Amino acid sequence: MIRFSTAGESHGEALIALLSGLPAGVPVDLNFVNRELWRRQQGYGRGGRMKIETDQAHILSGVRHGKTIGSPIAIELINRDWKNWQEKLPVETGDPAKHRAVASPRPGHADLAGALKYNFPDARYVLERASARESAARVAAGAFAKLMLRELGIEVASHVIRVGGAELHRPVQWEEIVAIAGKDEVMLACVDAEAEAQMKEEVDKATHAGDTVNGIFEVVAHGVPAGLGTFANWDERLDGLLAWAVMSLQAVKAVEIGRGVAAAISFGSAVHDPIQYAAENPPGRPTRFTRPHNNAPAA
Amino acid sequence: MIRFSTAGESHGEALIALLSGLPAGVPVDLNFVNRELWRRQQGYGRGGRMKIETDQAHILSGVRHGKTIGSPIAIELINRDWKNWQEKLPVETGDPAKHRAVASPRPGHADLAGALKYNFPDARYVLERASARESAARVAAGAFAKLMLRELGIEVASHVIRVGGAELHRPVQWEEIVAIAGKDEVMLACVDAEAEAQMKEEVDKATHAGDTVNGIFEVVAHGVPAGLGTFANWDERLDGLLAWAVMSLQAVKAVEIGRGVAAAISFGSAVHDPIQYAAENPPGRPTRFTRPHNNAPAA
Amino acid sequence: MIRFSTAGESHGEALIALLSGLPAGVPVDLNFVNRELWRRQQGYGRGGRMKIETDQAHILSGVRHGKTIGSPIAIELINRDWKNWQEKLPVETGDPAKHRAVASPRPGHADLAGALKYNFPDARYVLERASARESAARVAAGAFAKLMLRELGIEVASHVIRVGGAELHRPVQWEEIVAIAGKDEVMLACVDAEAEAQMKEEVDKATHAGDTVNGIFEVVAHGVPAGLGTFANWDERLDGLLAWAVMSLQAVKAVEIGRGVAAAISFGSAVHDPIQYAAENPPGRPTRFTRPHNNAPAA
Amino acid sequence: MIRFSTAGESHGEALIALLSGLPAGVPVDLNFVNRELWRRQQGYGRGGRMKIETDQAHILSGVRHGKTIGSPIAIELINRDWKNWQEKLPVETGDPAKHRAVASPRPGHADLAGALKYNFPDARYVLERASARESAARVAAGAFAKLMLRELGIEVASHVIRVGGAELHRPVQWEEIVAIAGKDEVMLACVDAEAEAQMKEEVDKATHAGDTVNGIFEVVAHGVPAGLGTFANWDERLDGLLAWAVMSLQAVKAVEIGRGVAAAISFGSAVHDPIQYAAENPPGRPTRFTRPHNNAPAA
Repeated sequence: MIRFSTAGESHGEALIALLSGLPAGVPVDLNFVNRELWRRQQGYGRGGRMKIETDQAHILSGVRHGKTIGSPIAIELINRDWKNWQEKLPVETGDPAKHRAVASPRPGHADLAGALKYNFPDARYVLERASARESAARVAAGAFAKLMLRELGIEVASHVIRVGGAELHRPVQWEEIVAIAGKDEVMLACVDAEAEAQMKEEVDKATHAGDTVNGIFEVVAHGVPAGLGTFANWDERLDGLLAWAVMSLQAVKAVEIGRGVAAAISFGSAVHDPIQYAAENPPGRPTRFTRPHNNAPAA
Repeated sequence: MIRFSTAGESHGEALIALLSGLPAGVPVDLNFVNRELWRRQQGYGRGGRMKIETDQAHILSGVRHGKTIGSPIAIELINRDWKNWQEKLPVETGDPAKHRAVASPRPGHADLAGALKYNFPDARYVLERASARESAARVAAGAFAKLMLRELGIEVASHVIRVGGAELHRPVQWEEIVAIAGKDEVMLACVDAEAEAQMKEEVDKATHAGDTVNGIFEVVAHGVPAGLGTFANWDERLDGLLAWAVMSLQAVKAVEIGRGVAAAISFGSAVHDPIQYAAENPPGRPTRFTRPHNNAPAA
Repeated sequence: MIRFSTAGESHGEALIALLSGLPAGVPVDLNFVNRELWRRQQGYGRGGRMKIETDQAHILSGVRHGKTIGSPIAIELINRDWKNWQEKLPVETGDPAKHRAVASPRPGHADLAGALKYNFPDARYVLERASARESAARVAAGAFAKLMLRELGIEVASHVIRVGGAELHRPVQWEEIVAIAGKDEVMLACVDAEAEAQMKEEVDKATHAGDTVNGIFEVVAHGVPAGLGTFANWDERLDGLLAWAVMSLQAVKAVEIGRGVAAAISFGSAVHDPIQYAAENPPGRPTRFTRPHNNAPAA
Repeated sequence: MIRFSTAGESHGEALIALLSGLPAGVPVDLNFVNRELWRRQQGYGRGGRMKIETDQAHILSGVRHGKTIGSPIAIELINRDWKNWQEKLPVETGDPAKHRAVASPRPGHADLAGALKYNFPDARYVLERASARESAARVAAGAFAKLMLRELGIEVASHVIRVGGAELHRPVQWEEIVAIAGKDEVMLACVDAEAEAQMKEEVDKATHAGDTVNGIFEVVAHGVPAGLGTFANWDERLDGLLAWAVMSLQAVKAVEIGRGVAAAISFGSAVHDPIQYAAENPPGRPTRFTRPHNNAPAA
């Protein structure tokens, strides 16, 4: 069973990702892991914090001679800002006068709920852990998962399909998504230059107004064999597990499988993916079954 | 720790819901449990199967003298149709000639993925378990969860806010949702008569065209104290856990928290729920913190 | 992942074993399952309850046409005594005057701890679930596990090696353990007639004195491939998982792996199992590695 | 839910203990945590490795201003020997010629099973993780658990009751166990000087003969309220959970609760702990129930 957990606060010494269950012998491409971490730090309109970080995965265990060895993998991500916070957020008692209280809980964050949960006088401790900085540890763990999936012929990639009012309208090929994932500059990972320009405009508009703007990204898994999931238990169904992982991300408030949101307001006939059967196996596919689109995938 | 699992096939002898972790002493109102099961069976435009079922929770364990006793609760839901299927789907070898093969896997179901997973020659065994009939066992377990939450002053209720193109546009009061949950006839649980009429029209239109139509329902938890969830671990966050449970339901392909889907295409300022602080505790609320709306709730 | 849980009280309507994670296609020999249940009910010197029970596995789900179908398997074991308890332990409120209180908590049982936990006025509800009757449901689930293991060439069997002062002293062959498991009369499953006679005497002595007497049984897994367990995580190690399962049985208060108890008071040289390497694969073994004995097995 | 996991190899850069679920506000006494680590390193007759280590808990997260903050706690234990192994066991490909193969799998260790599991050409990677060095990370996590239990009036301490043929025969008071836990020199934590001398002789004898010798230690939890465990589910019973944790330790091959091993060869009357009821609450105890001894505890 593959499991992972994370630890670490936004302004603490380091984040830890602890991943177990990978089999021994998976080649570990550290450049790939670090590139995934770098990609997380890009983003059109992102703040100054990103420039300080430049995360590097420091592997403490589970990898030897460039391969996994079956032991749990501990990855450390140093917070380069720690030296500026060591006295403000010490592990030991320290000097309370140096504490940097966050007296006003921010909406859209866990500040208020967290402070009430533990009866904290301010939201500092809550935001330290609730912060999206934690997602860096998830990216590190996810990079290892991708390394394993790659050995099985499965690849996972993502791209942005909407920012505010700007939307990608045209259909997208898998190769296009892979291509933007490989670009040196990934400020806003849209496959279409025109749509990307409009999305950037939305960000600029929001920034100019002292506001923020939300969006939609699509994650595509390529090469997934049918039957990987299960119909047997509610808590083992693949769609539920994916929704769990994605909804738990810091800013995510909605998850759809395929075209789930559009499907909810459609006729069934407009959503279903007809099952077709080819005369012979399509290249690179394990079965003869094909489907013209993927509106409501079940794996 | 509260856990539940289900067993049982659509045309087998019975479904089982097994629920453990409820403390001893929770009053068990069987009428309420059966009413929840009855509500699941209502629904404008639903097929004939619903009429056969009329589920009744048969409690095998965990409840004595009308209260939980701390032991696991096993609930049996008899499939009244079993007598017609006993020879078609026998537990023992039986007569293979009586098997009712499902040769054409249906899109929008687990048929194809499940049959490929186990190399079944047809989809019969898959659909028996993948069927939404399984959700009856979840409703039984959920009814017990509601009985426990009720003791803590928390209530959970749902209503329909969209069917195809017909949408509920006006704001809704908690009391309205409770009121429709209590109605004797719950064909389409919408709080607004006019919207409900339009929704029914959408169903009629689809039925007439030999099609189906999707929709959106909203589940509201009332009286939830802030701090019930956690910001500490990705796999314990309340929003992720809720998405897991809901997305694993048979026809659900999208989940949002608050106004998550609309938020994804909005400016931040249009989504956030300002935190306000009242001069004294509002009636029935544990803290002085209030929020004018609930677009992106965090608990 | 294979999981199982149980529900049901000693004098309730039925026990339920719910087992999930078995793959589809495992042949289900119901005679074997029922024989396992029958064996649990045998036992030299056991009380009258055993005669009432004669458990039969009633399969509610997960098995069709004599094979598993990948769905959760629900097994119902009817308590034949239920008709005598229906008014004493009703699910609904019933007549409190008919309650059969257990006012004196018994040592060696969970009575006191359980009653304090839930502040019960007597131990009735506790003993209903804490009772060893629950182990019948585990035997049913375990029988299915054995059916699956059998397909993989692994068999599990047990025998009694000590009762009070009477002990089996000679070495035992796997075939002897299998042989006693197959006998029609299994009152005290010892492979040696003389030792068995002494053990029975111990039971007679205790019964005559109005006492009970404890003992030791050995469970042997035959055909287990090396490497099934793991050294990677404390909570996934096979020895820990086995100890968890066995120690949770109602009367078990000690668990050893191999000759663990004797090892604890020995020199290392007297315990270790030398690793030998045969010139060719021994018959029926997957590797050339052999060990002359099995004092401290690691799998 | 409190969870912990560990990572790290014996000759890697560091071990990590990751502990989550402690509430916020628990005072963290780092001296206590380090003393627990120091105690693990003591031991009459232990090898040279222990002298290199002198473990210090380096807290990376979850503790601020001397208290837990509700976030996961990551504890790093640096392997001081890492500089000597950096080239022998590099994370990256490195120079294969510097690999230190362990060609002979050792009995009494996971070497053979682990190497067969992953088809490793030698046992190096297996022993790196299977090593008892891993238990240092468990001690660190356990020290935090003790800090939390202390706030609830529960203390846990251990002492040695047998080494080879030398055994502690007399009854022991809780205060004696606490006293030896506090000593500056803890080579062999026995409460009785004479018994300790005999135990040391057993160690000397084994060492002189180029052998090792096993033993028995007792862990006592003091102040545990009745009802902490459960009778409801096999996998939640406290005795099973304890056996799981203890049996998973690297050299442990037997676990007993109370006097479980002796009980297995005794009459029931010699084992049971009579339940008595005092006229008033005994000092420092929450209920009036008392028991003269603790042969078969149930919590």
